[in-house]
Formats: sequence, C-alpha cells, structure tokens
Amino acid sequence: MKKHNFSAGPAILPQEVLQKAAEAVKELDGIGLSLIEISHRSKEFIAIMDEAQSLVLELLGLQNKGYRVLFLQGGASMQFLMVAQNLLENKAGYLNTGTWSTKALKEAKLFGEALEVASSKAENFNHIPKQYTLSPDLDYFHITTNNTIFGTQIKTLPETTIPLVADMSSDIFSKPFPYDQLALFYAGAQKNMGPAGTTLVVVKEDILGKVSRTIPSMLDYRVHIDKESMFNTPPVFAVYTSLLNLRWIKAQGGLTQIGKRNEEKAQLLYAEIDRNPCFVGFAAAEDRSWMNVTFNLKDPDQGAAFDALWTAAGISGLKGHRSVGGYRASIYNALSLDSIHTLIACMQDFEKQS
Amino acid sequence: MKKHNFSAGPAILPQEVLQKAAEAVKELDGIGLSLIEISHRSKEFIAIMDEAQSLVLELLGLQNKGYRVLFLQGGASMQFLMVAQNLLENKAGYLNTGTWSTKALKEAKLFGEALEVASSKAENFNHIPKQYTLSPDLDYFHITTNNTIFGTQIKTLPETTIPLVADMSSDIFSKPFPYDQLALFYAGAQKNMGPAGTTLVVVKEDILGKVSRTIPSMLDYRVHIDKESMFNTPPVFAVYTSLLNLRWIKAQGGLTQIGKRNEEKAQLLYAEIDRNPCFVGFAAAEDRSWMNVTFNLKDPDQGAAFDALWTAAGISGLKGHRSVGGYRASIYNALSLDSIHTLIACMQDFEKQS
Repeated sequence: MKKHNFSAGPAILPQEVLQKAAEAVKELDGIGLSLIEISHRSKEFIAIMDEAQSLVLELLGLQNKGYRVLFLQGGASMQFLMVAQNLLENKAGYLNTGTWSTKALKEAKLFGEALEVASSKAENFNHIPKQYTLSPDLDYFHITTNNTIFGTQIKTLPETTIPLVADMSSDIFSKPFPYDQLALFYAGAQKNMGPAGTTLVVVKEDILGKVSRTIPSMLDYRVHIDKESMFNTPPVFAVYTSLLNLRWIKAQGGLTQIGKRNEEKAQLLYAEIDRNPCFVGFAAAEDRSWMNVTFNLKDPDQGAAFDALWTAAGISGLKGHRSVGGYRASIYNALSLDSIHTLIACMQDFEKQS
Repeated sequence: MKKHNFSAGPAILPQEVLQKAAEAVKELDGIGLSLIEISHRSKEFIAIMDEAQSLVLELLGLQNKGYRVLFLQGGASMQFLMVAQNLLENKAGYLNTGTWSTKALKEAKLFGEALEVASSKAENFNHIPKQYTLSPDLDYFHITTNNTIFGTQIKTLPETTIPLVADMSSDIFSKPFPYDQLALFYAGAQKNMGPAGTTLVVVKEDILGKVSRTIPSMLDYRVHIDKESMFNTPPVFAVYTSLLNLRWIKAQGGLTQIGKRNEEKAQLLYAEIDRNPCFVGFAAAEDRSWMNVTFNLKDPDQGAAFDALWTAAGISGLKGHRSVGGYRASIYNALSLDSIHTLIACMQDFEKQS
C-alpha cells in the first residue's frame, strides 16, 4: 500500500514521475541503453538538459528576461558559499528566518561583510521579520522564501532596488511568484522539483562579474553558464527526473493551477488546526507556509496516542523537526487532497477519543 | 536489443544493478515509498549509507587502517579544488598525465604553490612520465591513476614518503591495488562505481587539519567526516545505486576476480590491435590502460567503413575523444567478454574487407 507521504525532503513526487524515472533506469526511450549508462554528451542527454532548462524558464515566466538556468550539485548548502563567492564584494545583507538562513549567513562571512539585517531567532523563528531597513550599499539581500523547519513563508518580497537573492528550496514551483524580481534564486531539487542530487540555480546574467576575487572553476556561475551546466558530468538521473516532474507541473496547468491546489490543501489543514481544540499551530498566522505546516499537541503527553492514529492510517513523515517538536505536515505539489483529508480525519478521530 | 556499451562515462553498469535501482525508484524494499521520496534521515537510508561506506573499505582492503569514506557531490572536478583547499599549505606536486590532471593542477594553483613535477603533454599524453624527482617538502603528490581520454594507466605507485593523492575516477574498483599507500583518493562514480551524481572520497584522517586557511563547510572534508556524508542531503539515488554495484562487485569475488576478468578483456583487445594490420594503439605499450583502450585506424579515411561495421553489430560509445581521435573502447567492470568478442569480430571483418 502506498503511504501518505508527508516527508519534508527528500519528498513525495508524482507516481507517474516515479514510474517513468524507473523505466528510464531500465531503458531510456527504446534506445537499448539505460539513462544512467549513456554519455552526458549524447544527443539524448543534451536534449534532456536543454528541455529541462527551457521548461524552468517557461514555468517561472522568465523567458527572454536575461536569466540563465543551471543544474548543479551540492544542494542549497553549496549555494550558501557560491552566492557569496560570486556576488559578495563589499557587503551583503541576510534576513535570518531559520536554520538554513543562519547557515547561509555563516558561509557568506568567509567572503566578506555579511550582515544579519533582521532575525526572528529570539522567538524560535516562528515568524518572518518585517520591520527592517536595508542599507543602500549592499551587494545583495539574501532571503529564504520558505522555512522548511519552522513552517514560515515570505508572502511578499521586500521593496528594494538591492539585488534580491533567494533560497527557494522548499517553495519553488509551488505557486505563481514574482520570480522576475529576484536577481538569483536557488533550490535543492528534493522538494518540489525532483530527487536529491541536483540544485537549480536561476541567475540574471548581469549581476555576475562584479567581484574581484578569483573563483575556482566548479564554484563559478560564469563557468557553468558558459558550459550550459555541462562543465563536468551532471547528475544525470536527478536532472532527468526533475525534467519529468517539470513536465508534470506543466501538464497540471502550470504554477497557477498548482498554486490553487496548494492553497486549498494548506487552508484545509490550517482550518482544522485552528478549529480542533487538541492542536495549536506553531507559525504566526500571517506567515504560515503553504508547504510545511507545523503544529503541536496542546497536551504533548498525548503524543503516543496521536502517533498511533496517523501511523495506522498509512501516514509517513509527520514527525516535527527537533527544533520545533510536534508535527510537520509537508504538503508539496505531489501530495494529494486525499492525503490531506486522511490527516484531518486522524486529527478529528484524536479529538473524539481525547 | 541491449547495446554493447563502450561509453567512457557515464558508463555501463550490470543489468541486475539497473533492474534493482529501477525497482527502488518505484518502491524501496516493500516500504510503500520510493527510494527517492524518503528522508535521508530515515532508518532505511541511513542503513544504505552505512553499508555503502563499509563495503568500500571492505572491497579495497582498508578496514581498520585509519581511512574514512565520503560520498560527496560535484564530481572529480570538485575534488580538484577540495584537495588543494584541504591539504595544500606550502607546496604540492602534480604529475600531469592528461586533461584531468591538467585541470586538477590549475585549480590547485588558486590555493598555493602547485608544481608540475613531470608531464607527457609534449607527446599528447601517450605515456606516463616515470623519470622525475619529488622535492621532500611537498605537502602531497597528486597523480591520476587512469587517464580516460588517452588510455594510459599508472601500473606502479611512485616510491615516496610524501602523501600520495590520487584521482582514481576511471579505475577504482577495477583490480587489486595498493590503496593503502594512498593518503587520499577520489572518484566520480560514473565509471566503475555507479551513476553520475556522487563522488567517492577515501581519506586517511591523519592527513587532515594541517592547513591554516578557513574552509567553507561544504568543502571541508572534516565536516563531511563528522557528519558521515550527511552534512546535507546526499544524492540518494546515486549512493543507493553505487551500493547495489558494490554488492555486485563483492558477489563477483571482489577485486581479485574483477581484476582477472578486466585483464583478460584488455589483453584480448590489445592483442587484436597489435595483430590486426588495420589498427594501431595510441598509448605506449607499458602504460596501456585496462579500462580505456585507445586506438586508431592506420588509414583514417576508412573510418566510415569501420563505423558502419560496429554500429551494425550493436556497439555504442566507441568514438574516440577529440583529443586523440580514432576509437576508445571503455571496458569497465560491467562490460562482458561477449562485448569484447563482438568488437574484435568487427575489427577482423574490417580487416577482411580492407
């Protein structure tokens, strides 16, 4: 029986994507070879890489706007250093909204002056700070649009002329968004894009080339742009499976339809958290994430009873991160409304038996 | 029909590995979830990572010798800079035996004095230089044990007390080797270990911690050792498929049996190149690689005729790299004796019709 997969990441992917990816590992499109044993310089893989890059721009509405798409390796954690190494000449600002932005800030400090512009750490990152001033001399301002661990999400981009850089690992491709207001954004694939093993970077070309340091080839966006993500062997399986998932997003009606469904899923679940006297939401209401819904039991001693209910219902991956405790329902694109209803039913059963 | 896959990399993997990897993409071991949609912190994936690390040490005969095993991302190209960033304090030596060692040397120069100790570039890297002196003050000496493009291979390690660092991307796991004489070695997975997307690093712990620079977290071997390759989300599919392949190597009888078979395959093919008046080998006889067999037509104008023969025989990936021209038969572990005989038959058919 297929589980209801609420894992925070690596996370649920559409069944048809999993099936097609599995087929390609056996044999790619009838060519007599597996996807993972052909040269990345073959015409088959070059076509895969080209389509994946084009589809990213198409889905995000960024065609012909000066952006380039890269499929790299190393996860968002590698971007924490690459962003600073490629863009930080004098000073950069960071909005600290959780574990990942804290790490991004730490790595940036190795390359120059990296300022924490605002932080919600004192409140265990349960909200997005909104009152802050950006010094006009920042090279860039770094934000984390969705905080997977704490379940908060930036709903409105700051109004500024400073180039915005965003870690969008856990909400990219989840809804329409003013992507064209960002100078650079990146995402580990393993939430809404594909399997772990590749990292999407979308970068406006004109922000590059402004730092004076020499950058090692593998860490230089310019190198990867010039080689179209083929400076060295790319993570073939992760790129191909991401392409399958991007095609699936397009077939669903693109980000508009995906966003509507994600909103519906999130609203249903938050409504139950607010209604059900046994539960309390973790994140500030106005900053609640549509992707990671964090909540706690009002009586933490009843954890075993609630866990037994959702485990029996075939739910997986609901345990909260240790920084927050309680529960985290990660409700990415591929999670069905049926899984949401299953979880809500468990919450209501728990209420009845409490 | 399954092709005879002579691709240089990504390269042939055993059919049973491909089948099992495909099954896991659908569902991992009956857990109701795909391999690629479960948390890397799940007990299932932790067991995969642990077994993969143990099996590497077991197959290489490195248990209890102070080595640690890492599964990283970024390919050998990322190791070009990580090696220097983690180990180069004063001076390092590089043996330049081809395209990849040239790149390794280039990246190392960003971190300190990196010397080209010897090079075979003037002869288009058709042999391994053997007459050179190592200055005793080198932090390490870097070699490339097998040169995928040129088809040369180091058969004997230099005798030195300087720590040896080796790029073994294209011959790791291909035969018994004095791995324990190396301080650090690395390999992009996509030849004899698994699919593209992960990079194996095996490092003797006592060579670390000797440089004074601050290293970004993602580039610091110490960080990855302390987190057991789980500092951030690992490339789950590539690690799992590598594990399947490591199990396959063990089931074949380990490196002793694998090495015997690889030697037999290489000898058969080189014997035909030397016997057949239509062909000439590229690499110096004493440095011929058991993994990548490079050869040319004596009459390059007959290329179309030979290409037609092997294409019709279901052979794929035989075209030589542009730096060498002609042909390159990559005959990694999973390539069968049957595929070797098929290629030899094509060479003999070509001789008859010439």
